Formats: sequence, C-alpha cells, structure tokens
Amino acid sequence: IRPRVVFLLTFRHHGSASLCLHPAGTLCNIVCKWRKYFGVYTDGSHWINMKPVLETLVDRGHQVTVLTPSSSMYMNTNEPSRFHYEPFNVSFSLEAMEEFLEEFLRFSIYEIDYMNYLELYIRFIDIMKTDLQFSIQYLDGVVKSEAAMKKLKEGKYDLLLADPLYPGSDLVADILGIPLVFSLRFSLANNWERHCGQMPAPPSFVPGAMSKLTDKMDFSERVWNFLFYTLQDIMIDHTFWNVLDRYYSDVKGTPTSACELMSKADIWLIRTYWDFEFPRPFPPNFKYVGGIHCRPAKPLPEDLEEFVQSSGDDGIVIFTLGSMINNVTKEKANMIASGLAQIPQKYRGEKPETLGGNTKIYDWIPQNDLLGHPKARAFITHGGTNGIYEAIYHGVPIVGIPMFADQPDNMVHMKEKGAAVILNLNFMTSEGLRDAINTVINYKSYKENAMQLSSIHHDRPMSALEEAVFWIEFTLRNKGAKHLRVQAHELTWYQYHSLDVLGFFLAIVLLLIFIFIKTCSFCLNRCCVRKEKKKRKAK
Amino acid sequence: IRPRVVFLLTFRHHGSASLCLHPAGTLCNIVCKWRKYFGVYTDGSHWINMKPVLETLVDRGHQVTVLTPSSSMYMNTNEPSRFHYEPFNVSFSLEAMEEFLEEFLRFSIYEIDYMNYLELYIRFIDIMKTDLQFSIQYLDGVVKSEAAMKKLKEGKYDLLLADPLYPGSDLVADILGIPLVFSLRFSLANNWERHCGQMPAPPSFVPGAMSKLTDKMDFSERVWNFLFYTLQDIMIDHTFWNVLDRYYSDVKGTPTSACELMSKADIWLIRTYWDFEFPRPFPPNFKYVGGIHCRPAKPLPEDLEEFVQSSGDDGIVIFTLGSMINNVTKEKANMIASGLAQIPQKYRGEKPETLGGNTKIYDWIPQNDLLGHPKARAFITHGGTNGIYEAIYHGVPIVGIPMFADQPDNMVHMKEKGAAVILNLNFMTSEGLRDAINTVINYKSYKENAMQLSSIHHDRPMSALEEAVFWIEFTLRNKGAKHLRVQAHELTWYQYHSLDVLGFFLAIVLLLIFIFIKTCSFCLNRCCVRKEKKKRKAK
Repeated sequence: IRPRVVFLLTFRHHGSASLCLHPAGTLCNIVCKWRKYFGVYTDGSHWINMKPVLETLVDRGHQVTVLTPSSSMYMNTNEPSRFHYEPFNVSFSLEAMEEFLEEFLRFSIYEIDYMNYLELYIRFIDIMKTDLQFSIQYLDGVVKSEAAMKKLKEGKYDLLLADPLYPGSDLVADILGIPLVFSLRFSLANNWERHCGQMPAPPSFVPGAMSKLTDKMDFSERVWNFLFYTLQDIMIDHTFWNVLDRYYSDVKGTPTSACELMSKADIWLIRTYWDFEFPRPFPPNFKYVGGIHCRPAKPLPEDLEEFVQSSGDDGIVIFTLGSMINNVTKEKANMIASGLAQIPQKYRGEKPETLGGNTKIYDWIPQNDLLGHPKARAFITHGGTNGIYEAIYHGVPIVGIPMFADQPDNMVHMKEKGAAVILNLNFMTSEGLRDAINTVINYKSYKENAMQLSSIHHDRPMSALEEAVFWIEFTLRNKGAKHLRVQAHELTWYQYHSLDVLGFFLAIVLLLIFIFIKTCSFCLNRCCVRKEKKKRKAK
Repeated sequence: IRPRVVFLLTFRHHGSASLCLHPAGTLCNIVCKWRKYFGVYTDGSHWINMKPVLETLVDRGHQVTVLTPSSSMYMNTNEPSRFHYEPFNVSFSLEAMEEFLEEFLRFSIYEIDYMNYLELYIRFIDIMKTDLQFSIQYLDGVVKSEAAMKKLKEGKYDLLLADPLYPGSDLVADILGIPLVFSLRFSLANNWERHCGQMPAPPSFVPGAMSKLTDKMDFSERVWNFLFYTLQDIMIDHTFWNVLDRYYSDVKGTPTSACELMSKADIWLIRTYWDFEFPRPFPPNFKYVGGIHCRPAKPLPEDLEEFVQSSGDDGIVIFTLGSMINNVTKEKANMIASGLAQIPQKYRGEKPETLGGNTKIYDWIPQNDLLGHPKARAFITHGGTNGIYEAIYHGVPIVGIPMFADQPDNMVHMKEKGAAVILNLNFMTSEGLRDAINTVINYKSYKENAMQLSSIHHDRPMSALEEAVFWIEFTLRNKGAKHLRVQAHELTWYQYHSLDVLGFFLAIVLLLIFIFIKTCSFCLNRCCVRKEKKKRKAK
C-alpha cells in the first residue's frame, strides 16, 4: 500500500520557528543606534521575530547591541553573530526560572481543564505575581546596576527597540531620553494596548486577547467579553501596575506611572496582521507586521525529500508541538501515534509503541521548508503564533492542539477564518485526531480559506519585515513619531468617554427642570393668592 | 531698491491645483474594470485627486470609463483623454446649478460672519436640502435611466471607484454587484465615516470635521464638539438620510438603508494623512492617501523664472484664492493689493489701484512649480486641501484666508501644526496681511514646522498615489476586502456601546439588592415576632 499521508513527528524540541511564548524570559529589549546600535534582548519565540529585523538593520548599516541577561534559557550569546551582545547580571538562577516555567506549563496544559473559574483566576494571579518578580529581577540587573546604566548612557544609542512582554524597556528609554519602538504580540485582554497604547476596543466586537472569543458575539458572549475585560483589568491593576508603579517611582525618585511611560512608545509593531486578526480599529502608531520571520521554503535535505516524495499525490502532514513541550506523557504519545497510524504511514527513530509505519520522528524538522513544500497537506500544531504564520504564509490548513498562553486564542482565530480544526490535548482520542486530519485535508474549504489567508498575507504594500524596519528607521530619522500619538493619552477615563460633558448636560437639564417647577409653583401660588384675595373681596 | 518679496496674484481663476470643493457637482464616481474600466466622474477639486489615480490605472493596463453628467461645470469631456467618458442625462440646466453655487458662496464667504448660530444652522439646512436635490437629479440620470443602467450592466465592470460626496455610487455598485472603493476627503462632522464607515471618533479628542476645533480641547471645547456631533447628526439624519433612504428603497423596491449600502464599501481612501490630520484611531479599511496629486516642481516658464529670480535672497510669495473666487469686491482687492504693496514689489497686467510694483497678476499660475521653487517663502491661500497639500509637499509656510466648506477647518489644522497664520477675509486689513506674511517668513518656526510636515509627508512606506492604486488593485484582485470590515457594522448603537450588557448587569445588581432587602426584612420580622413571643411568654 502506497503511503497516503506522511507525518513528521517532533515531540522533543521545536520546528524551526515554533518556539513558544514562555512566561519567565528576559527583558525583551533591543536598544538601537543609528549606525551604532545597542539593545536588550527577547527570548524564545519572541526572538524569532526580533532577529530578522535586527539582521536587516545591520544589513542597512546600523549597529545593533542586544542586552542579554546572564540567566537565559534560549539565547546563545556565544554563537557568532552580527550584533554585539551586552550581558547584564540577574540575581536568580536558571534553575529557578526553569522550575517556574515547568509549573506554569503544568498549570496551563493539564490542570487548567480540571479547574473551575474561581480556582483558575486565583491560580493565574499567583503565576502573574511570580512572573512579575522574575521580570523585576531582570530589570534590577539593568536600571539598578550602575555599571550597566553607565554603559548604556555612554553608548549614546539613538533608539530602543523592545518587546514589552518583560516590562522596563520604557523606563530605560525614559532614563536614556531616546525614542522607543515596541514589538508586541499581545497583552492579556489587550490591557496594555488599550490603556497605554489607546487602542479602542469596544467589548461588543473586539474580543479580549485570550478570551477565546471571536468578533461575532451573541449577547452572552458580549456579557462574557465585558466581564473578561473588567476582571482582567482589575487583576492586572492589582498584580502588575501597582507593583510596577512603585518600582518605577522608586527608580525615578518621583511618582511615576508605568503605563504612562509605556504610552510614550513612538511605534507599536504588532506581530499580527489582518490575515489572522479580527478587524478592529487602531491608532495610527500601531503597525501590523505579522509574519516577520516568514520566508519562502528552501529545498529539503535529500533523505527528507525522498521520504516526502514517497507520499505520492496524497502529500504530507507536518506535526510539531513547539519547543515548550519537552515531555508529553507516554500515554498521550501513544494515543497521538495511534491516531496518525490510522492513516497509512512510515516510521523512523525511537518510537511510541503504537506508531505507524508512515511516520518519521525528528528532534528538529525544517518546519517552514516542509510547510512550503508542494506536498504539504496539513499542519498539526500547538498553535503558537510563529507556526501559524508559517502555515498562513504557505496556505496550509491546520489541526490545532493548543496548549497554553495565546495558543487556544490563536486557534480560535484560525478556526473562525475557516482554516483550522481544534482538538483538546487532554480529551482528544486517536480517532478524533484522525478525523480532524481527514477533515482539513478532504473538505476543500479548509485549503481554500488557508490559501485566501495566504493571499491576504502576501498581498500587502510591503512585507512585514520591510514595514517593521521602515517604521524603526522612520523613528530614528524623525527622532520619534509624536505626530502619530493620539491626544487620548492626555485624557482621564471619564474625559475620554465624555462623562464630564454628559454630567454637565445632565446638570443643565436638572437645573431647567428645577427652574420650571419653581416657576410653575410660584405662578400657581400667585394665582391662588389672587383668587383668595378675590374671594375675600367678594365676601 | 531690490524687491524683497515678489507676489504672484490671481484673483480670477485658480492655480494649477487649487480648484475647490463645490457644493453642487456631480455623481462623483468612477467605475473601474480590470483591464476594461468604466466610471462616474467627480468634479472640480475632487477630480484633481481622482485623475492621477485613473491615469496610473490606465498605465497599469486597466480600462477606465468615467461617467459624466450632461451638466458639468468643470469637466471637459471633449479634450483628448486616456479614459472613456460615458455621458448621462440630467434634467436641470447648468445655469440652475451655477445660480445655487453663487448663493452658496455668498452665504459661506460673506453672510456667515454676520449671522448668529441659529440663523446659520437654519440657512445651512436649507442649502443642504437644495444640494441633495441636485444630487438626486444626478442620480436619477443613472439609476432611473434604463439606457444608462443597461450600458453599465453590459460593461461587466469589475469595480466602482467613487467620491461619495455625491451619493448614489453605493446604490449603483449594489445593483451591479461589484466591489466599491471610496475616495473621500471628509463628510460634515464625519457623519458618514462614523456611522457608515465605523470610524471611532470619541468627541473628547476627535474634533468633528468643520468644527474648527483641534484634538487638544478644554472642557468648553469638548462640550461644543459633543454638541456639534449631536446637532449635525440630527440635521443630517433629517435632511439627508431620511430622503436618501426613501429614494434607495424606491429604486430597490425593498426597505433599504442608504448608510448600510455605504458601509459596504470595501476600502475608504481618505484624502489626508498624518501630516495634516490630527492623529485618531481608524478601522483597517481606511487608508490615508493625502497628497495624491502632489508632484515635484517643473522648471518655470522663462519670463516667470526671470521675475522670480529678480526677488534675490528674499524669495517669492505665492497668492491664489482658488477657482471658486471669480470676483472679489474691488474694495477687498484694493485692500489686499495695498497689504502686499507694503513689502517692496513688482507688477504686471490690469491692476487694482493700490497694487504695488512688486506684484504680478496672472489668470493662471503654475502653483505647484512655484511652491516647489527654491525661492518660495510663503503661500497665501484660501486653504483648499489640494493647495495645502502642495504647500506641505514642498514645505512652504502658509497665510490662510479661508472662505468656505472645509477651508476654515483646514487652516485650523495647519495653524495647530505651527505652519500657518489665519486671516479673516471680511475683517482683515492690509496691515494685518502684511504682518501675517512677515510672521510666517521671519519667524523660523513656521518654516521649520512646514519642513517637518513635508518630511512626514514624504517619509512613508509608499507614495499616496501608489497606495491608493495598490488598494484599488487589491480590491480588484481579491474581489473585495471583506477581511478588513469591522464587525461593528452588524451591531446596533446600544449593542456597540454595550448598553444592553450594562443594563443586564444593572438588572442583576438591582435584583440582588431587592433580594437582600427582602431577606433582611424577613429576618427582622422573624426576630421581632420571636421577641414579641418571648415578651409575651415572659409576661
């Protein structure tokens, strides 16, 4: 029997670009200098988007310095690089961070499905707090280190490029007095974009990031989205902004609002685009540059190409669960392998017992090159943004097994756009997996929608990478981008919503009613008095 | 004495690109066809922006048809052209329109300064109504003419490009079932952009178009802006949408909302940019393409170049009041000329009595080439968007004498951005004009700000013309741009503002309070009853 679908399996390690968001990374900043650059770095999947931008900046004659913490799980600052790495010290060990990450993953992937909302909320607050403590210790290593700050000041850098996932870059930019460009995937419930970036987000049609809602909401979903924004805002205010405000005020020596410093960012490079995002309004300094890391497929290694070609007309399915998943339980692995085995397969390497002959396992696969291969028929993924963007780029339909962070939300986007089917790792069966794969391959609409997204992705005035580089260089050339900053930043929340104006009108209306009533009663009184007088006279 | 400033005066006729918005033009539409085009045209200053786009489309292998009414004040459909003009009949005469235009100008330029708000509002409603009647008669010539509609249908056009200033293009696109791209400068109080385009515009920082406010508003200005939006919305609802809804319903044979048809536009090409506009949020299908018609300066005719060069280091000032101003009173002309004469000057041609020797009068001047001349020092203008954009393009500070329509509002933008001084035609003196010119020339900040705006204008990912053409072709390639359409279009106003959700929460809170009070009173009753019983027992 000719193999119908070939699977490329990687449980350990990630595909080329499916590194994932991790909760305790590093100060995700890159400070750039016109013709002489400097910066702070971002870790994991976020680095995948940052690196091509920095490389292009170097190509265009800039000097780039990347600030790296001594405890980094992913950055290899010893490998030859075209930018200068500037290390700074952090007081915690790599082990402490790894332990926390392990805990976060256990919560996100397994425990989350067995908790009620209250338990979930409380546990999440706990994790947020710990995460912020790590971030603050990173920040200590920069802003509270005289040596580090001296070096930064002496560097005379012209721009700071930063992923605000780890806070503090705005504080550093403020102290150095240089323009700031953010590169951001999202913040929880878009709290930062809404409150510090002034992105309008009416809860009626803009689903909060991580809410797993779409832009088409019925009444109950709109109620939930409203609650989601409110509850997350309260939580973030208490666990995040309060702590950060104190920290910033302490460093600056005057009462400082961290959100206000964040709002000073000249450009927000948002790492999505309308191929993935639900359409929504945005301020003019928000630039949507999703798919920065995407590139055409390169030819496969000879043996892999041979294996892929052996699939004949049926093509191949690519399977990766991202870099975070270093261990799936044996039970799960068997279940997945058995699901894959129900569609004729091949195999190579150390295998789960139930693995089919059509499946190959690799520690690392050239994910992008496989997705761009004419034989690619489907992509089974954990739903990290980078992997999804590679699938969009090449127009490949998706079977999503989302794990944590933005992955469930990401998959909701792809499902809503008709290019994906979602499975739950904890409850999925091998039959469910088989059916999901067959669905996205056999129902034409999935491929058509994936191709439509791909068309939207490619059909734009300039590529995501070019646009990101353009706005960074624009900020350098113009020493900021203040002309794109909406005046809403200067308003209080009640001014923004014109509540003071409405109050004023209400006061006038009430005053008019009051005057009207008083006048009436006065007239009535006069009338009565006259009548009485008349009566008296009549008597 | 060496002339310090040379003026180029044109009272009659316009500079190359200072044609103005006029109130009763034509159906401003262009229907485009992929490799075979067709369209409805736009008049006056609006045509200046449309024409380069159409010419570029023809350059790129499209066929363009322009729909032109039989009564057009500005279009010359007999001159050789690269697109096909398709005439349609209108039932009113050119004289009737000219008469109305004359009336509108008299109101806008002279009467407006001597009216109170109520008089102004009533008069404006009157003008709006007449204007709409002209528009509807244009529309009759297309949608109610069997011959015209048959031709349009047989043309099998792929896209309709239209300036919605004259309504009906959305109805035509809907009947033909083809994608629609709008090219719009603005609507009064941004009514169309807000209600039909779903552009968010919180009155707290987004001044309504024509309100003459900036984005920095104090409390009283915010009150005024709020009122401005509300009053204009009420007025437009009654004089515009009501009439149009009836017309559309009549043509379609089913109840039809004109605003809903307008909201189906795939792309809104807004003819401004952040060099001129106050920053504000916008939906993803709004593309800001201000300055489409701008181009580098060409060399001047020999005699003009000689005249310009004779100004020496002091350079020249360019003066035009646009195409609408065919007659300024002799008194005004003398006042202006005398103002200009107070700075040493030259002269040629039929002159007002007080004209100085440094001033030349032309029926027509190559405005763009003069503004782009290295010797250009200032631009005295009525403040039409096209002229302003030429000044921005070349970085020339402005003395504005705004007349009507968006001109006063335009000048407020330029003044706020520090590149202009404003004068009032009805109250200005020759000394005031002299001082204004001296101010923008001698205070460096005006030139610096003008150059900063010029830098913003030029420093964008692609030129305005390229971007406009890109999004038109995108809509053609993708048969629409529905992925950029915000879901807000499907919501009612109370859903959009989550008022139903808030009402639901309020109901819950009230219910809880009610239950709490009932429970308390029940408990108290029980308590009292028991105490009474105890008391009785004790007795």
